Amino acid sequence: MKLYTTAVAPNPRRVSIFLAEKGIDIPVEELNLGNLENLAPDFVAKNPMGRVPMLEMDDGTYLAESLAICRYFEEIQPEPPLFGVGAQNKAEVEMWNRRMEFEVLGMISQCFRNTHPYWEGKIPQVKEHGELCRTTVMQRMEWLDSELADREFIAGDCFTVADITAHTGFALGRIPKIRIAEDQKNLQRWYDDVAARPSVS
Amino acid sequence: MKLYTTAVAPNPRRVSIFLAEKGIDIPVEELNLGNLENLAPDFVAKNPMGRVPMLEMDDGTYLAESLAICRYFEEIQPEPPLFGVGAQNKAEVEMWNRRMEFEVLGMISQCFRNTHPYWEGKIPQVKEHGELCRTTVMQRMEWLDSELADREFIAGDCFTVADITAHTGFALGRIPKIRIAEDQKNLQRWYDDVAARPSVS
Repeated sequence: MKLYTTAVAPNPRRVSIFLAEKGIDIPVEELNLGNLENLAPDFVAKNPMGRVPMLEMDDGTYLAESLAICRYFEEIQPEPPLFGVGAQNKAEVEMWNRRMEFEVLGMISQCFRNTHPYWEGKIPQVKEHGELCRTTVMQRMEWLDSELADREFIAGDCFTVADITAHTGFALGRIPKIRIAEDQKNLQRWYDDVAARPSVS
Repeated sequence: MKLYTTAVAPNPRRVSIFLAEKGIDIPVEELNLGNLENLAPDFVAKNPMGRVPMLEMDDGTYLAESLAICRYFEEIQPEPPLFGVGAQNKAEVEMWNRRMEFEVLGMISQCFRNTHPYWEGKIPQVKEHGELCRTTVMQRMEWLDSELADREFIAGDCFTVADITAHTGFALGRIPKIRIAEDQKNLQRWYDDVAARPSVS
């Protein structure tokens, strides 16, 4: 088994935090995305989306998509559980992870890609779309701050994959200047708690 | 248990197809989205995102997000399996469902919302963004057509949630005129096969 990944990008980071929380250590091959190694024909043959992370399985097949990779490791090593325990809690974690994926990480990523000079000339940028994403995520941060008033983590009292998704989003958000507001004390408390975990720091 | 839903919208449709495949019949309350019943304070108190479908659980809590609702029913009634069987196959289904979610249903939905007169004045439309999504999904359709040359369904030889996600996407695509091309015979064969299932037709 081997994980194709890169050091600094949100999705590779989600998988590396997940594996660290599980205490799983697997061989890694780093791709240089600056050199477009992820778009080289031999890599695209393995993952047609040309993205990392991607897991090479022992049977020679390839598994892409961060959350699919995380779920695979949850299945083969359930402890500590990061996708919930029991039917209802698993569904709640899924709900929260999806909210964090679409409303936080996704919006921040779209804002970054569509507004930041780093992407100029690399992808077609639509600044108006990026700014709408910024507005949406700032509304979501107000909501999240109120949600976190009476619980420790995004999906309840346990650290889960939803925290990994949200934290990765907010860490990325610093680049396009999406920052937790001073009066969002619950959100900031949660952010600092997660940042202090050995898997994240 | 009660499902808050609406008759014609992609995400409610995903859950209704999923439940029909499982042979699960639960009480339903239809919301009129045209009257913005989903944004009424009593509904937003249940789902802050103001979206259907949403499942009211027997303990009085609420579960939102289509895929979280589907996963809940997969857990309490595993047969027929729609999220895969065993660690590796479950992860493959997750990978394919996510690809269909982000690259097909998501792109088509963004194209529809940002380019179609139906949404004019209802949401801020960014036509350039919608057209970029159209271009992306049309590339993905070429790729999917080649993927489906040697297998029956999106994630392999079994019908799964990934087929539900993709089919719901392409059904929506007819509105912003995203159609399977005449030479995409594998994709069309798959689309027709899924459309003929009692759960979909």
